[in-house]
Parts: sequence; C-alpha cells; structure tokens
Amino acid sequence: MEQLHHVAYAVPDLDAALTVYTERFGLSVERREVIDDQAVEAVSLGVGPGHLELIRPLDDHGPVARFIQSRGGGLHHVAFQVPDLEEALDELRADGAELIDEAPRRGLGGHLIAFLHPRSSGGVLTELVQNPETPAHDSPGAMA
Amino acid sequence: MEQLHHVAYAVPDLDAALTVYTERFGLSVERREVIDDQAVEAVSLGVGPGHLELIRPLDDHGPVARFIQSRGGGLHHVAFQVPDLEEALDELRADGAELIDEAPRRGLGGHLIAFLHPRSSGGVLTELVQNPETPAHDSPGAMA
Repeated sequence: MEQLHHVAYAVPDLDAALTVYTERFGLSVERREVIDDQAVEAVSLGVGPGHLELIRPLDDHGPVARFIQSRGGGLHHVAFQVPDLEEALDELRADGAELIDEAPRRGLGGHLIAFLHPRSSGGVLTELVQNPETPAHDSPGAMA
Repeated sequence: MEQLHHVAYAVPDLDAALTVYTERFGLSVERREVIDDQAVEAVSLGVGPGHLELIRPLDDHGPVARFIQSRGGGLHHVAFQVPDLEEALDELRADGAELIDEAPRRGLGGHLIAFLHPRSSGGVLTELVQNPETPAHDSPGAMA
C-alpha cells in the first residue's frame, strides 16, 4: 500500500458538510459526481496528496443510506493507494481475504477501485485505489 | 490542513489487527506505545507519508473501550496535519468550533495534537497534529 488515498464520510446533508470542510477547514473541492452504481453523490476535497470524500445516499435502501440510518453518518471507509490493483486483489485472494469486488471497477474520478470486506481488514470497510500513473493491463473497456 | 496524517482504528485484539496489517497488507510498525492519559496502547504503521494507528483500550471504561463495546471497534478518528496547531485552534475557536482540547498536548510519538468534537467536524472525531517540522512557539515543557 503506497499511501492513504482518501477517507470517506457518509453525511446526511452534503451541503452542510461541505460548508464545514471548505469554510471552516479551508479545503478545496476537486470534483462532485453522482456514482450511479453506488447510488451516492460524492464530493472529493484535496488534502495534500490525499483526499477527503463526502458521500450522501441517493436513495434510502443502499448501504450508505443504511449506514446513516443506523449511525447518523460518520466515517464510512478508508482507501489506500496500491501500485497495481489486479495484482493486489490476486495476492489478497490467495491470502484468503474476503473481497467485495472480485475485479477492479470504476469509482470517483474514473479511478480503478475495489472494496474489501471489513472482516478481512481489521473491522474497517477498506477500498483499494490503483495509482492512476500505473499503466493498465487492458483497455478501460475490458474492466466494465 | 496540509495532509491526512493518520487514520486510527479501535481494535479489541491489537495483535490480531497487527497481523492483518503487517502480514496481509505489508505495512511496517513505526512505534508501539502506551499512552497513559488516553488509557490506550497504540501502534503506528507507516503508509507513504501518512500512518495507520491501531489502538486498544487499557481499561473498560474509557472512550475507546466504550466505542468498542458499542460498535465492536472500527474507524475511531481521522487526523490531519496542520502547520501550526495553536494558530489552528485559535481560528477554530473564533469560528465557533467545539474543541475537546483547548490547547495542544502530546500524543503518540510526542507530536503536538488536539481533538475536535465530531459536532464541529462533520460527524467525525477529528484530531489535528502539528507538523513536527514547525518550530514550537514555546519549549515543549510549556505545553505540559
């Protein structure tokens, strides 16, 4: 794992949380996107070489919505950058880790990502993000 | 905020969590310390310029122990590095933020740290850590 890529906070009110992190803490918005396959709207803010993601659910029955219903929001997951995501998943699989995503898929900003089950990562929902400077094994279309 | 300094996971079994993060994920232990005033044992592992902290409670009634009792462990707090912690606390106080620590104190590795209440940081317990390369305003003894 090369570095902390981002921490993601599930928030019930995205604009209120954005006001806190832009006005109180002085962070800048890098991108704001709807991620349909996760049913969330996500905003990425830059913090040095890493990022803070704020995510709000778009419906009331996805995992982020249920997380907010049960806990009121808060820290949702932590993402680490790896040089080669397919290789990392192969190694984790061989080690008996429980993968939520068996293959890389596209996340915020078009990055290649995959989630691991908290049972295999010390009780914390963990995302791996491929360093965007790593050459892809295949064309992006092959990942769809 | 200059960068993500660390994420901290509260774990019921420190050695089991360490095995996951050293053997499965290949991280290296930087330091392991008992922090008496927080009643925890903490291990810091390096991840690029940032760190992953694993913390276990030393008793059954402190905040980390209660966090594990209610949630079974998991993401406990996120720490951001700031250039000047006293200045950051002054600005946050002026902005009406709720500080858990009104003044810098010593955390893991002797860093100057302070916690903010989750109510003032988007629902997430947030620690600020002064960049250790920033010259101190006073001698370290003045902070005690």
